[in-house]
Amino acid sequence: MVEQGYRSVKMDIEELTGGVCAVPGVRAYGLREKNKGLALIEGAGEAAGVFTTNKLKAAPLIFTERQLQKTGRIGAIIANSGCANSFTGEEGMRNAERMAELASSALSISKEEVAVASTGPIGKQLEMGLIERQVRAVAAGLSHHPGGSAAAARAIMTTDTFPKECAVKLDGIRIGGIAKGSGMIYPNMATMLSFIYTDARLDAEALRRCLRYACDKSFNMIVVDGDMSTNDMVLLVSTGEEEISEGRFMSGLEYLCMELAKLIARDGEGATKFIEVRLRGASSESEAKRIARAILRSPLVKSAISGARVDLACGRIIAAIGSSSENVAPDKVSLSFRNHEEETLIVKGGRIITNRSEVLNGEEIIMDITVGEGEGEATAWGCDLTCDYVKVNAGS
Amino acid sequence: MVEQGYRSVKMDIEELTGGVCAVPGVRAYGLREKNKGLALIEGAGEAAGVFTTNKLKAAPLIFTERQLQKTGRIGAIIANSGCANSFTGEEGMRNAERMAELASSALSISKEEVAVASTGPIGKQLEMGLIERQVRAVAAGLSHHPGGSAAAARAIMTTDTFPKECAVKLDGIRIGGIAKGSGMIYPNMATMLSFIYTDARLDAEALRRCLRYACDKSFNMIVVDGDMSTNDMVLLVSTGEEEISEGRFMSGLEYLCMELAKLIARDGEGATKFIEVRLRGASSESEAKRIARAILRSPLVKSAISGARVDLACGRIIAAIGSSSENVAPDKVSLSFRNHEEETLIVKGGRIITNRSEVLNGEEIIMDITVGEGEGEATAWGCDLTCDYVKVNAGS
Repeated sequence: MVEQGYRSVKMDIEELTGGVCAVPGVRAYGLREKNKGLALIEGAGEAAGVFTTNKLKAAPLIFTERQLQKTGRIGAIIANSGCANSFTGEEGMRNAERMAELASSALSISKEEVAVASTGPIGKQLEMGLIERQVRAVAAGLSHHPGGSAAAARAIMTTDTFPKECAVKLDGIRIGGIAKGSGMIYPNMATMLSFIYTDARLDAEALRRCLRYACDKSFNMIVVDGDMSTNDMVLLVSTGEEEISEGRFMSGLEYLCMELAKLIARDGEGATKFIEVRLRGASSESEAKRIARAILRSPLVKSAISGARVDLACGRIIAAIGSSSENVAPDKVSLSFRNHEEETLIVKGGRIITNRSEVLNGEEIIMDITVGEGEGEATAWGCDLTCDYVKVNAGS
Repeated sequence: MVEQGYRSVKMDIEELTGGVCAVPGVRAYGLREKNKGLALIEGAGEAAGVFTTNKLKAAPLIFTERQLQKTGRIGAIIANSGCANSFTGEEGMRNAERMAELASSALSISKEEVAVASTGPIGKQLEMGLIERQVRAVAAGLSHHPGGSAAAARAIMTTDTFPKECAVKLDGIRIGGIAKGSGMIYPNMATMLSFIYTDARLDAEALRRCLRYACDKSFNMIVVDGDMSTNDMVLLVSTGEEEISEGRFMSGLEYLCMELAKLIARDGEGATKFIEVRLRGASSESEAKRIARAILRSPLVKSAISGARVDLACGRIIAAIGSSSENVAPDKVSLSFRNHEEETLIVKGGRIITNRSEVLNGEEIIMDITVGEGEGEATAWGCDLTCDYVKVNAGS
């Protein structure tokens, strides 16, 4: 079998520092005052976007989707944290447009080419005076150095505990991105933002294909709590003229998006353990995805992992498999847990082998799960459920 | 509009004590040793059952479904707690059958007419020696007094904090039931058991129709954590000869099942607040159900309610509506919260009116939610998410 996707390019990938600023010609910066942050990224070219499937889309998403449909290009991205500008009616739409105008005049680019993103609590209006001040300061600080990207990544954080950046080099081209999580995270775009740049030359259609494919393998395979945000957005901008085949680029982009997605899962609200589920033997890829995500969404599985209890986790994983699969026979189910040091076979051919829990003591758990003899497989990422998740989200 | 369902009979319903023993001719008893309980209910007649849709069904469900298909009757129910007899292979099937044999010989009835149920952790074999001893003791204690039903209801508890019983009288007939929750609770049967008896005379086909309808309106509308068990089962047995129309009986059964379902939601693991969602204006009943359950499943909504934070709950409810509905316009969304003392309008016509949180201070919250102008409506029940849920399920 010829290896496809990120595995086929993994050996050729060189990791870079600098996030979006690893891509020549891209400048970025950001700052925050208390919980209100603002980021600007400058770098023009053909662009593609993926947006939440939530039916109540926030104003900046409606605005940016329209922009992209009109021009197919992005010249700059302006993103604020601390207010989602969601469920804000006509005033919200005017404010999203006003954000684009502010970026447009600060950077002397066409308003039609500004993408706008927001993240934070739903149902509040933006403080436009603050944003106006912040845009001026951030525009003055724009930099092509790694510190510029890091400042932008920090500015868009909400309950994130660390900024999220990744950059890679493949076949001479560069791809760099930043992202934020970390609550309301569920497939088909979570409350997450990610902005990705590349100096590879691809037309808008190819960028869209590559971004959709890479998102399906990465951001759409992370689960923190199963809630789907009104504000999710991933943007990809091609600023350069470097040559690469679409297939190679797609695989490189998949790799980058997976790294960013894993950072989001790792930083889930209240998380103490990162979980990777590798699901095999399903009747189709879509069934494999559904089962993997059901396991990572289960509060019971997540609680058992936080308590490092194999005996509790095992039966709950089985229940999650049974409730999300179309057809599964108990004697075809196998399950093993791995951490950095050891692998423990928990279930084999439908029989529970052990309840030894040492393997769950680490901070990273890989679950290898087989549910049958089909060809369908998928990998998904998530985290455990702790009291701190409840506390963060109860506002206490 | 002619009122349908339980509302049409509510005025005529008289609540009784005694659970299943409120029905003449039914005897029950139960006992427990540490976390291992056993209950027996005796009372023969035509019967119907509803079972989990989980693809990995536990042994007692496979056994009982077959029995019902063969005979259409139940003479007795034997149910244990402390072990689900799920994911237990052929030994599990033999043990389920053995439980039926034990009840059969203790009560001198045909083995073909014994229904078997189990609840507890998945993946462990039953301790048949213990069950054998318990069957003898419980059979000796069988009683038609209310205490018999109460003992059976207590015996099937797992993490439940109180036993769940309800009985009603309508048009001269009686319906009485017991139930247990209280984790792994999600529509299409939660980890819940309920056993219901009636002295109304209805054939097996009518019983099936009535039970399916009542379950859809009650047990399938409660959400504790969104996990679906391998062991859910509701059984309905008609032991008597009293006359009633199928429509009236169905409404009475709906009322009884809703009362039992609400007790399960109220006793959700770690719950401090009971939540009722009344959803109106959806395009169909199925969309209304989907939205209501999505709201009650959201860990973010549930956490915000536990913290009594209207400001946090509001936006998350909006996100849950948007992610679970087919089509919703922000300006058609209205939301109000009620407790025993006051009602607070939170969102009207898409505008957030207030963030005052006093209304969330009580232990019972009713959410009246309108999502459009359609005819679809549904009511669902759930509870908040607290640290205690995590602690209970982390085994700490």
